[in-house]
Amino acid sequence: MSLFGPDNLPYGVFSTPGHERRIGVRLGDSVVDVAEFLPWPSLTPFLALGRPEWTERRARIRDALPRLTATAIDEVELHLPFEVADYTDFYSSEHHAVNVSRILRPGEPGLPPQWKHLPIGYHGRAGTVVVSGTPVLRPYGQLGPGVFGPAQRLDIEAEVGFVVGVPGRRIPTGRFRDHVFGVVLVNDWSARDIQAFEYRPLGPFLAKSFATSISPWVTPLEALADGKPPEQDPRPVPYLLPSGPGLDITLRVEWNGTEVSRPSYTHMYWTAAQQLAHLTVNGAAVRTGDLFASGTVSGPTETGSFLELTENGTRPVRLGDGKERGFLRDGDRVTISATAAGAEGGTIGLGPVSGTVCP
Amino acid sequence: MSLFGPDNLPYGVFSTPGHERRIGVRLGDSVVDVAEFLPWPSLTPFLALGRPEWTERRARIRDALPRLTATAIDEVELHLPFEVADYTDFYSSEHHAVNVSRILRPGEPGLPPQWKHLPIGYHGRAGTVVVSGTPVLRPYGQLGPGVFGPAQRLDIEAEVGFVVGVPGRRIPTGRFRDHVFGVVLVNDWSARDIQAFEYRPLGPFLAKSFATSISPWVTPLEALADGKPPEQDPRPVPYLLPSGPGLDITLRVEWNGTEVSRPSYTHMYWTAAQQLAHLTVNGAAVRTGDLFASGTVSGPTETGSFLELTENGTRPVRLGDGKERGFLRDGDRVTISATAAGAEGGTIGLGPVSGTVCP
Repeated sequence: MSLFGPDNLPYGVFSTPGHERRIGVRLGDSVVDVAEFLPWPSLTPFLALGRPEWTERRARIRDALPRLTATAIDEVELHLPFEVADYTDFYSSEHHAVNVSRILRPGEPGLPPQWKHLPIGYHGRAGTVVVSGTPVLRPYGQLGPGVFGPAQRLDIEAEVGFVVGVPGRRIPTGRFRDHVFGVVLVNDWSARDIQAFEYRPLGPFLAKSFATSISPWVTPLEALADGKPPEQDPRPVPYLLPSGPGLDITLRVEWNGTEVSRPSYTHMYWTAAQQLAHLTVNGAAVRTGDLFASGTVSGPTETGSFLELTENGTRPVRLGDGKERGFLRDGDRVTISATAAGAEGGTIGLGPVSGTVCP
Repeated sequence: MSLFGPDNLPYGVFSTPGHERRIGVRLGDSVVDVAEFLPWPSLTPFLALGRPEWTERRARIRDALPRLTATAIDEVELHLPFEVADYTDFYSSEHHAVNVSRILRPGEPGLPPQWKHLPIGYHGRAGTVVVSGTPVLRPYGQLGPGVFGPAQRLDIEAEVGFVVGVPGRRIPTGRFRDHVFGVVLVNDWSARDIQAFEYRPLGPFLAKSFATSISPWVTPLEALADGKPPEQDPRPVPYLLPSGPGLDITLRVEWNGTEVSRPSYTHMYWTAAQQLAHLTVNGAAVRTGDLFASGTVSGPTETGSFLELTENGTRPVRLGDGKERGFLRDGDRVTISATAAGAEGGTIGLGPVSGTVCP
């Protein structure tokens, strides 16, 4: 059975030569035109409608599938599915946080002292969120005092992103599904040498802001089964409770066509409901089109960044063509895809998000 | 002579009861309707037009002033003048950076090691940039392990913000005026206790994201005289040269009507042209409506934050009503205004940006 059957139906925005952008759903290897139900050139107006409309239109689209027009997926162009309002990135894998501390800050404590009290996050650049397939230009920056040039330690971060539909502030964890429409896969490209020189005390800036790729397909929460809630010790403060469910998603990272990692989202410490509750607890509003990402998905053995996979380039991986890699070279292509436990019992597909590094 | 004479003419968006939003310019204590020349409900389309149109329409408006309709400024409502795309904040006052390090990180080196090599910056939350006059709700957050409540050390940051009109990437310092339309005054409200607990290693997040206030008036660069370029040692790397001119702006911070500080922008280490060059040198694009702020404007004696002014609350200031303050209390009102050397030789006014703290 296809990973993109009628129990999945992620939404995207597509065009064919000579025609305007329309909303479609993916079914198998084709794109089904659903403009009859969602008559916009972007998902944004649909995102704003809220949970009852999301549910009802999905049901109507599903009923109508047999009579709707389908086009082979390789005959359409896929676009950024919605206008990104604010982009926020979290840091919610304990394995990733410990690995990064060990590699980038040897001799310092493994986990920041507040890490288990709140989901650490920061704002990224919304204007440089691009759709899968957009070439990623190797960033320039300062790599040390007076040293300027192209980043040499260009990396990926494999993440799951959450798309906000309904605006709100101080959103309790239990209201997560009223506000969040669905998920995308995210590659938060990162220049580790730029990052190391710039990031204290205000956080990563140019190391991340050149590009963040997302999948063209937004998988509605309704298609995803609830996963086991994470075990959290110490017990979080009340606004972060209950944690809400996890998600049973397994990512797959391919480097020039070779699978190099299969990190599981089930190892994440903080849930997306807790991230949204934290993001808004201070009174900050979220808007339709806000995107917040999980942080790099790394587990005890499988990691979502090459910094971790290759121990900062010191243990290169051998790819299918026999070549070794520590960090990304020009021309390299990275594709992140995922499978997840579907709400109706099967396995569904997410993504993919791809990008090729250009000089 | 008025600080808002025909040599100034900042742009804003206003409405009167029962009428739609329109663009106006401030002349003295009135708002002149310029919808005939700028027929939009927001400055955004005008920002996108670029320098030649900015110059030409300003000249036409100025010629037409005597015949245009003016309304007293206290009879109009002023709105957010443009849609904020991405919001970035810098940290470009050496005095501020040293003061903050000393107060928040005693025993650590005063200035981060890269501080004089690049203008440190980070992304803020665009969706919570609000216009002057919008009430500022005291944020909630974690103030320590397991400690949740309203921020007790609520502070301001008096800054100058730069409004991007024309999109671009890798913008040389010499092309600054082709891309940047003008300036606003910014109050980057900051909760120091939330910040202290959350900010390592990814930077400030909830401590800033609840609200950033900007003045309703955008002063075009054409109204401002070039100031002396800063002295920079060591010499910056080539993409940050030439530095471009400074700006001769003096801010005025009032706390419940009492002037408590007059920090001067002339003490800033990095210029706005260098900040824009840095922001885009990695390949990141700026968009119409991007806002980037200078960072807190502090000089050798006058400071742009209460953290510095009151030494983290340990040396309270006495206000005009005889009451003492370390940080902001509910009901407190802060107004930041400024004067600047005008391009035509006189002194012009900027701002104001005001906000009242609500529980």
